[in-house]
Amino acid sequence: MRLRGRKGIRESLEGQTDLVILDPRSHKGQWAALFGNDHPIHVEFGMGKGQFISQMSFKYPNINFIGVDMYDELVRRAGEKARTVWEPAGHETPPNLKLALANINYAEEVFEPGELERIYLNFSDPWPKGKHARRRLTHPRFLDKYRGLLGPLGEIHLKTDSRSLFEFSLNAFADFGLQMKNISLDLHADGINEEHVMTEYETKFTGRGVNIHRCEAIVGAEALELYQATRMDKYRL
Amino acid sequence: MRLRGRKGIRESLEGQTDLVILDPRSHKGQWAALFGNDHPIHVEFGMGKGQFISQMSFKYPNINFIGVDMYDELVRRAGEKARTVWEPAGHETPPNLKLALANINYAEEVFEPGELERIYLNFSDPWPKGKHARRRLTHPRFLDKYRGLLGPLGEIHLKTDSRSLFEFSLNAFADFGLQMKNISLDLHADGINEEHVMTEYETKFTGRGVNIHRCEAIVGAEALELYQATRMDKYRL
Repeated sequence: MRLRGRKGIRESLEGQTDLVILDPRSHKGQWAALFGNDHPIHVEFGMGKGQFISQMSFKYPNINFIGVDMYDELVRRAGEKARTVWEPAGHETPPNLKLALANINYAEEVFEPGELERIYLNFSDPWPKGKHARRRLTHPRFLDKYRGLLGPLGEIHLKTDSRSLFEFSLNAFADFGLQMKNISLDLHADGINEEHVMTEYETKFTGRGVNIHRCEAIVGAEALELYQATRMDKYRL
Repeated sequence: MRLRGRKGIRESLEGQTDLVILDPRSHKGQWAALFGNDHPIHVEFGMGKGQFISQMSFKYPNINFIGVDMYDELVRRAGEKARTVWEPAGHETPPNLKLALANINYAEEVFEPGELERIYLNFSDPWPKGKHARRRLTHPRFLDKYRGLLGPLGEIHLKTDSRSLFEFSLNAFADFGLQMKNISLDLHADGINEEHVMTEYETKFTGRGVNIHRCEAIVGAEALELYQATRMDKYRL
């Protein structure tokens, strides 16, 4: 694809203050005010072209969504996608979605402790070389950040087609002491669930028979309590 | 293969009291006495043809091993394998290995609480139909039994090529509240580790490119403490 010049991208983003947040640090601790309500905030770190976060925001109007990416061209494309999803319903501006240009390494400068309820990590870069393990978004140095940002109902939802990243992540969650649930090694084994919102990447590769791995990790104390109360229900003991 | 008549099998087993235990219930709480020492006891539930347990016993002389299977023909074949492994070293009777004919459903009639240190589950029947989930050897109703039998250093080591059984097991361990470690989705990804003792099945299928999944689950309080002390060491935080 032809990439626009960086100047053109910036101009496009600066003209979308209703949707795109170029100075996310300035909203730290104030995201609820920006959305104008106190609904839970779910964030996708590394939203890419934005299909997932756009469709999620449309599907769950009572949750506020923030898509984060460090590449301005991806934020621009996610903006186009978000408007494409929302416009047919008569919304020029998605009411419960913001797209933030930010580097996840500095997530704690963008969000207050406890400000988030859920973090989605979808098809993050697997960084397959061992020497790059620290860059994987499920490395304990990131889990430590996430734990700080998530509130009592906090969870991390991971989806990837990379077996190596998934294996690393399961061990990292376990070693970090996070309770896991709903682990799937082949998410679409029983056919594609229409209820399940997919990323661009997922749509493309699931059609080619690639396995999608998924896992949820519980961070918040209240989320853990809720889980504890029902964790054995499915086993008919 | 040609199966011998059941009478022939029984006669063969009854002639091997140095190795084969046909009345394992009579040794409940007395396994250390049978081995003549107080070394840790590692059990394989569903040993099949016995390659794994035989080689493990040979490799780790300071651990007592018990291979358990419910099929007398498999116990007979495991006996042959065990002697094949030990005889070249001049041992007519393997000193630290017993093969027990028993049904794992009644494991608590064979072992005292805390009598075991490790349970191996290798390539257990995946029972893929949902209605048979209770028969899977990692179903919480079995995990509950295992927890009773394992002592303070107790762990469960699972190995399988069945993605569905592995997925079920990860969720079962997590839901049951067991700390997991050393999760691998492709055990031989980096080539076959000579240190790693393989089952017959594993030898055969790894050569054909089948993925082996592996996981350890910590049961004992002391094992958990040991793990907690070092769980972050590998991450260079």
